[in-house]
Amino acid sequence: MDDFIFAEEITETQKISLKPWKILISDDEKEIHTITKIVLSNFIYENRKVEIYDAYSRSETIEILKEHDDIAVLLLDVVMETDDAGLLVARDIRETLKNNLIRIILRTGQPGSAPEKDVISKYDINDYKEKTELTTTKLFTTVMTALRSYRDLHLIEKNKKGLEQILESTRRIMQFKSSALFADSVLNELIVLLNLSKEVELKDNKVNAMIVDTSNNQFNKIASKGSFENLEGEYLFTKSITDKLNKAISLGQSYFDHFDYVGYFKNENDMVNLILISSESEINQYDKSLLDIFSNNVAVAFNNVHLTHEILDTQKEIIETLSEVVEKRSKETSNHVLRVAQVSRFLALKYGLPEDEATKITMASPLHDIGKTGIPDSILLKPDKLTEEEYEIMKQHTQIGRDILGRSTRPLLKAASIISYEHHEKWNGKGYPNQKKGDDIHIYGRITALADVFDALYHKRCYKEAWPLEKIIDLIKGERGEHFDPKLVDIFLENIDDILGIVKRLS
Amino acid sequence: MDDFIFAEEITETQKISLKPWKILISDDEKEIHTITKIVLSNFIYENRKVEIYDAYSRSETIEILKEHDDIAVLLLDVVMETDDAGLLVARDIRETLKNNLIRIILRTGQPGSAPEKDVISKYDINDYKEKTELTTTKLFTTVMTALRSYRDLHLIEKNKKGLEQILESTRRIMQFKSSALFADSVLNELIVLLNLSKEVELKDNKVNAMIVDTSNNQFNKIASKGSFENLEGEYLFTKSITDKLNKAISLGQSYFDHFDYVGYFKNENDMVNLILISSESEINQYDKSLLDIFSNNVAVAFNNVHLTHEILDTQKEIIETLSEVVEKRSKETSNHVLRVAQVSRFLALKYGLPEDEATKITMASPLHDIGKTGIPDSILLKPDKLTEEEYEIMKQHTQIGRDILGRSTRPLLKAASIISYEHHEKWNGKGYPNQKKGDDIHIYGRITALADVFDALYHKRCYKEAWPLEKIIDLIKGERGEHFDPKLVDIFLENIDDILGIVKRLS
Repeated sequence: MDDFIFAEEITETQKISLKPWKILISDDEKEIHTITKIVLSNFIYENRKVEIYDAYSRSETIEILKEHDDIAVLLLDVVMETDDAGLLVARDIRETLKNNLIRIILRTGQPGSAPEKDVISKYDINDYKEKTELTTTKLFTTVMTALRSYRDLHLIEKNKKGLEQILESTRRIMQFKSSALFADSVLNELIVLLNLSKEVELKDNKVNAMIVDTSNNQFNKIASKGSFENLEGEYLFTKSITDKLNKAISLGQSYFDHFDYVGYFKNENDMVNLILISSESEINQYDKSLLDIFSNNVAVAFNNVHLTHEILDTQKEIIETLSEVVEKRSKETSNHVLRVAQVSRFLALKYGLPEDEATKITMASPLHDIGKTGIPDSILLKPDKLTEEEYEIMKQHTQIGRDILGRSTRPLLKAASIISYEHHEKWNGKGYPNQKKGDDIHIYGRITALADVFDALYHKRCYKEAWPLEKIIDLIKGERGEHFDPKLVDIFLENIDDILGIVKRLS
Repeated sequence: MDDFIFAEEITETQKISLKPWKILISDDEKEIHTITKIVLSNFIYENRKVEIYDAYSRSETIEILKEHDDIAVLLLDVVMETDDAGLLVARDIRETLKNNLIRIILRTGQPGSAPEKDVISKYDINDYKEKTELTTTKLFTTVMTALRSYRDLHLIEKNKKGLEQILESTRRIMQFKSSALFADSVLNELIVLLNLSKEVELKDNKVNAMIVDTSNNQFNKIASKGSFENLEGEYLFTKSITDKLNKAISLGQSYFDHFDYVGYFKNENDMVNLILISSESEINQYDKSLLDIFSNNVAVAFNNVHLTHEILDTQKEIIETLSEVVEKRSKETSNHVLRVAQVSRFLALKYGLPEDEATKITMASPLHDIGKTGIPDSILLKPDKLTEEEYEIMKQHTQIGRDILGRSTRPLLKAASIISYEHHEKWNGKGYPNQKKGDDIHIYGRITALADVFDALYHKRCYKEAWPLEKIIDLIKGERGEHFDPKLVDIFLENIDDILGIVKRLS
């Protein structure tokens, strides 16, 4: 990484809104306040004026410092209500307030009571002046060097704060595995970063931001903030916006414009994501540095999120592909397992299972009939009704499935094993293979049972026609508390339209 | 995140090795050097002495500053070889050398030629003194406040550098997906961080470090550095070491001891990893802060690596489990697909394929016979020799496999589709289904063909006995350039012992 140092480059428009330097005079003589203010009245340092605060005692000084942690310079009298009031203030500032940035200039009228060498050695002050030597010029130059010192400290401190924020932001975005949550989190952190430089010198800043992906040769918004939030399609992707995005694509890299930043992120699979930031105030050098550094981390994190997605999607496709193998042999309608998976997911969430459990059921349920690979063709593919004996063999697909899947310790395969074993049990204890009853049947099994039966009835099979919806609903109602978990039947009937939506989408 | 500020806590043992503050005197009068050195001869600030460098001209001053970027204070004469030599030095330092930390005290004998207010306004200097006002006391206090200012700047700068390093370290460790590479990278970064504070004040530091996992109720080293590197088992996990590790486990959190840091990382699946750092010099407050902050990031990254591994391992088990389904039905020996996968991986790497290609073959090759699910029992399970007609049907498993797997766009499933389709082609063009020849057969197919045939011959099947090794080697030699890719046969024969090792481990 390049060293994170940069000039304080201030644009013309920003100068207007620059805040003044804060200076505190702490002295029990009113006249000193007056004179100091006259000397500093036209004082300007780095385009910023000074704003002067007054305190007349130790406690007043500390109060003001507590209220304003951005006071740059303190002109501090030694003798106020006590002989050492000023010295105590100096100690309070460093030790109690832990303020190491403020520059403390000690001014004493009685140098005898606080000898220079002693005081400088013992107290963490930055300059020592006898009031008599503080001519107009000396006061002016003393304040200027103190402000310069404060500026140096403040600049590094500000850079440090920026880095701290980037670190924290990086840690936060690293925790998200889903694209949408990740993207949303990246935008949140970018806005925090862009408002960081505004804290001290500038007014607050409104930021509009979005992340898009560029798959299928078009821009798709995956997260947004500010005025981009409520816009979609052509209202969002106006010519002005698409021009900005396309510029990054043709450059093949991120770029800054006065008020805009477009981040360009290409992952290991050559997929491109773009981040557009449109700020209401100009993006300054500090912002640029923060955005640059943070963007490097975002790029790595983006890649990790993509990778995790790619692996998970592959896993999903493997399971679905291989479940279809079973379907093929048993001549069930295609897409059956996909529909069972999605309906199961829907029921699981409505039933109150957490997101990760629902995901597990979705991933595992396509494998519910995998045991059928162990059933001979003569039975599996028999077009006529099975004999008693044949049916007993057919039932064994539940155990075969459990055995195939159950040796693994992976949560996903364990879930698939349970589903395979229990998806033919019935709530009333009349199912197989174990005649389990009610809650003894694992919720995975109860959910898949309902989703499986519904889909089998709803679609045509080689041995039967598709049933009309009313007839299916009647059957499911009739099996409430018999074949099926009553709570699941209620959820099913209440949400029949959503469920039909899922099924039709996958038919 | 807590604000990254901390006291400069120096232990007694460290004081001895503290480096002195560097001060540069730049003046063309030799006498000034002598006097200054006398005044500062016993100077001590924050337990550190001063070391004084001498320059007599602008160019000499710049040379010394280029060589030592850690000079704290410059006592700078204005008039040397030219009237403004000192002023030019001041400008060079800030603008050319970009050194903003060094505190510049201008000392002038002819204040008329460089009026205070002018000079202070125009040049980025930190103090202005007329030589006449620099009494012993004034020189002493001026240097002390300048050093104090430098210390403040340097401390924040050091913290900033620490944060920069943590950011860079975080970015680097985020890029590793394999546990071993990740762990190794974490240790590298920890050592960099621990040597950071030594750069300026202290001598170099030797660090021994390791990462262990705690699965199976024992410590397993997954990466190590320094003296831990060449030790294993009881030589590594001595009582003193296991005591340190167990302390973190019983505390349930990371802790510091004088020379040790033990990091405790528990992931979402409650698996615990530990990092032990044993440093030869005491771990100071700065180190602790860096380790604390970095450890937070390591924890998140650890979790991500674990998650990716869990998903990949699950994927591997799904593929293997489901390939076994095919095995079961075709009554092939168990573990056949695992052995084919590992032998294929070995051949792929020796052939010169990159790691990710080898991994793809390993993951995909278990699916090579998935198409057999589409072959009727009567043919697949026929104990006698197949008729010409039946054999033609049997051959179709290659196309069925390609069709099942080939609809996906996922690289892994595409690879599996190729393997399924081409693993019965022969180098001489006499294989099936397409009589492809030589390099026209995909390398995935050529590799799996050899691994598959070898393993089938080496093990007993229901229709044949296991072949003796010599007979297999003779056959493979005979098929060099006939059935098999000659280059692969050469690799196979050269590495037969390693291959037998793989196969035996999985038999």
